[in-house]
Amino acid sequence: MKVDLNSDLGESFGAYTIGRDANILELVTSCNIACGFHAGDPAVMNTTVQQAVENGVAIGAHPGLNDLEGFGRRAMQITPKEAYEMVVYQVGALDAFVKVHGGKLQHVKPHGALYNMSYDDYDLAKAIAQAIYDINPELIFMGLAGSEHIRAGKDIGLPVASEVFADRAYDARGRLVSRSKPHAVIQEPQTAVKQVLQMVQDGTVTAEDGSVIAIQADSICVHGDTDQALNLVREISRALTAAGIQQEALI
Amino acid sequence: MKVDLNSDLGESFGAYTIGRDANILELVTSCNIACGFHAGDPAVMNTTVQQAVENGVAIGAHPGLNDLEGFGRRAMQITPKEAYEMVVYQVGALDAFVKVHGGKLQHVKPHGALYNMSYDDYDLAKAIAQAIYDINPELIFMGLAGSEHIRAGKDIGLPVASEVFADRAYDARGRLVSRSKPHAVIQEPQTAVKQVLQMVQDGTVTAEDGSVIAIQADSICVHGDTDQALNLVREISRALTAAGIQQEALI
Amino acid sequence: MKVDLNSDLGESFGAYTIGRDANILELVTSCNIACGFHAGDPAVMNTTVQQAVENGVAIGAHPGLNDLEGFGRRAMQITPKEAYEMVVYQVGALDAFVKVHGGKLQHVKPHGALYNMSYDDYDLAKAIAQAIYDINPELIFMGLAGSEHIRAGKDIGLPVASEVFADRAYDARGRLVSRSKPHAVIQEPQTAVKQVLQMVQDGTVTAEDGSVIAIQADSICVHGDTDQALNLVREISRALTAAGIQQEALI
Amino acid sequence: MKVDLNSDLGESFGAYTIGRDANILELVTSCNIACGFHAGDPAVMNTTVQQAVENGVAIGAHPGLNDLEGFGRRAMQITPKEAYEMVVYQVGALDAFVKVHGGKLQHVKPHGALYNMSYDDYDLAKAIAQAIYDINPELIFMGLAGSEHIRAGKDIGLPVASEVFADRAYDARGRLVSRSKPHAVIQEPQTAVKQVLQMVQDGTVTAEDGSVIAIQADSICVHGDTDQALNLVREISRALTAAGIQQEALI
Repeated sequence: MKVDLNSDLGESFGAYTIGRDANILELVTSCNIACGFHAGDPAVMNTTVQQAVENGVAIGAHPGLNDLEGFGRRAMQITPKEAYEMVVYQVGALDAFVKVHGGKLQHVKPHGALYNMSYDDYDLAKAIAQAIYDINPELIFMGLAGSEHIRAGKDIGLPVASEVFADRAYDARGRLVSRSKPHAVIQEPQTAVKQVLQMVQDGTVTAEDGSVIAIQADSICVHGDTDQALNLVREISRALTAAGIQQEALI
Repeated sequence: MKVDLNSDLGESFGAYTIGRDANILELVTSCNIACGFHAGDPAVMNTTVQQAVENGVAIGAHPGLNDLEGFGRRAMQITPKEAYEMVVYQVGALDAFVKVHGGKLQHVKPHGALYNMSYDDYDLAKAIAQAIYDINPELIFMGLAGSEHIRAGKDIGLPVASEVFADRAYDARGRLVSRSKPHAVIQEPQTAVKQVLQMVQDGTVTAEDGSVIAIQADSICVHGDTDQALNLVREISRALTAAGIQQEALI
Repeated sequence: MKVDLNSDLGESFGAYTIGRDANILELVTSCNIACGFHAGDPAVMNTTVQQAVENGVAIGAHPGLNDLEGFGRRAMQITPKEAYEMVVYQVGALDAFVKVHGGKLQHVKPHGALYNMSYDDYDLAKAIAQAIYDINPELIFMGLAGSEHIRAGKDIGLPVASEVFADRAYDARGRLVSRSKPHAVIQEPQTAVKQVLQMVQDGTVTAEDGSVIAIQADSICVHGDTDQALNLVREISRALTAAGIQQEALI
Repeated sequence: MKVDLNSDLGESFGAYTIGRDANILELVTSCNIACGFHAGDPAVMNTTVQQAVENGVAIGAHPGLNDLEGFGRRAMQITPKEAYEMVVYQVGALDAFVKVHGGKLQHVKPHGALYNMSYDDYDLAKAIAQAIYDINPELIFMGLAGSEHIRAGKDIGLPVASEVFADRAYDARGRLVSRSKPHAVIQEPQTAVKQVLQMVQDGTVTAEDGSVIAIQADSICVHGDTDQALNLVREISRALTAAGIQQEALI
């Protein structure tokens, strides 16, 4: 039994530093690197790719909306054609740094609002999948477990990876509970660890209404921007190891 | 005998249109496509690459400074490391569109201030050459004939292409006469055509002081933004053909 | 009887030129000048304000979303607080150029998606109105006739101007018919002229379903980006004059 | 006897936080707030202006080059006209927030490369001074003591404030020693404090070659981005108070 641990990295920009990339790189098996639209710049991408290669962490491109001011988190009315083009551009840019450092791009995972807007919108999800496929049909489309991401990726002919969240509550449809609701984020580390084990071992998650639903857990999204977040990753990792579950990249 | 004709394309942005790409694509053998920093955006890059492929025109990346407001023409104090990173990023982004349209990237030519700043600065030229090499050592570095571009490209181990200008006056060092001088631009089409033939046939150019100096002419830079400019390209093309000189891409 | 004719100006950017500002300035009584977010830059703003002052055309600020690539036309999920701040910033920047040229700012009209998103969203409209009021309570809020723009402007205590469109079809609620529908734009100049006269003289418009609804017409929005558009403005102006309707700025 | 203490504030952007504005606002008498080009955004400007007003700290605009990626620190080839326009734009934008919060703009101080490029370039310094004057001739031009900033400001008819640096070494011309030299930054707090007292009390500074030159010290630039920097400000403040020197804003 095995699972991937992924984290968003390379989100600094110019004089601005965000995240604890060096720490989290020691814990995860895959990373998603910002591509210069919602975060990151050529210098940050260069450094982050190099660090990921040195740490043996598998690399994914993390394309987002062209909204640095909003960190790519503000939904924006874009067409599938625009989604296609922004993904081609950003994945191409990141892939160049991966080549330069002798690495190999493993996957693509859309960021923030691009992720959220597309996981229930088949046309948008398909445009993203098509962009990934046209660049390289061996790239993995990492997206929300059970969502249009996964359906569109399969339809296009891409390998897919279903992402789950350790510390987010799910609704009965298998969607993340909106952050506007008080119980959206799981505060108690042990509850998060328990949710992870259930998702990986049983392939289920207990939704906010108590129902138990099926969920595919190929990769667990974790964060490393605070001491608390890093500790949660360590606990998840220990619990997985204790349960005999390997932590490995997707390929 | 043969020579390449190149032109800068894909310089539109969002709602803004510039240049007559459809017209010039019928005349040139290579094009340099803007990569989203000084001009161009993912939609423009997508369209321009597609048109170039359809017209059988060889494609080059045309990376520039991150200065859309100044169209990449304002010199900026950047380090060789920054030049390296901005070239990797932009060439990677453009190359992704080339792949998507089933093409093959032929060359890289820096744009505007990045071109001008680096043709007499070996460290900057070498950083650009290294970026090109690290992405793909078969890419051609197109730069100013007789400049540090060519020297650095050769030192790094890249194939190079020496670019010459039909309608620009040269000084005795083989550098372009500054646009601040009245005779910098050759106004008379026949003089420009004559200069082109001399450069291609004899491998020389007559400088502003009357001296005749050696110049390597692998590719002639032409423009297509006005009727007059397009006519000059047609006249150059006719004169080359009449002299038995093939117009062909670099590879 | 009198009415204002307004047009969006100053939408060029850097090396990119859009619109025929010099021509339209001879025809309108007010203009809305882009403020550097969706279009315009400090040089364009400087020139456009100067030209407006020289032509005796009243000046309005035309703030938009920070989306140059999409020309401010792509809806974006922003909070009222963000709307407030982006309006304060942009109006302040434009007003500085107005001062420098000895002019006086007359009004503020939101652009594109910011206009469309706010005319049915009271909270967003109110945030825009509050920003205008806090800068200068004598500034006029120009917005869609009959919309939340007008209601929020009045609630805040601002003078308001109701904008109508010569060549756009209206629905029975008094909203513009979406551009996705075939009859959204009135193609026949005489129909547009007739609609304008009815709006100004009778205070009504005939909606797409044939119903006649009340509409307040303080200012007519016209465009000058094509020969055809300029001709329509000339015909509207002639028809208004022939009907004894003065064309005057709002104050 | 009195002197002003100023610090650069409001340099955060979007999701990115930089500086300890809350701490430094308790120590300085004036602040220079970034205007959205090299740093800052409408939300950051709104918050920072509000905090400055609440703390009774005098506000200056801190316009910079349009280079967020380089934090406005990379020299760029701009014309005096471009400098004029970028200053009008940015000062206007910041001033709008100052009005909204019931404050009054005290001064303008160019940032980073715009500061460095203009202090030895009279034409550039004059264009900046003209922009300030055209917006409001009562605004103070804060610039490098003894530089073209001060000369151009006086020539234009503006009130000026001569800025000095506590922890930077000076050369015999009264210019800052380049950061590329090892002794450019004074590491020892007591040496910095001593330099400040000498500048304010005696109107002189001891240059790197040991010569004592005249210097006008209206405002001392201090930084608050680290514990060490904040401690230095506290020591400077204590030493000034102990020497009977008031710390007051410029007006």
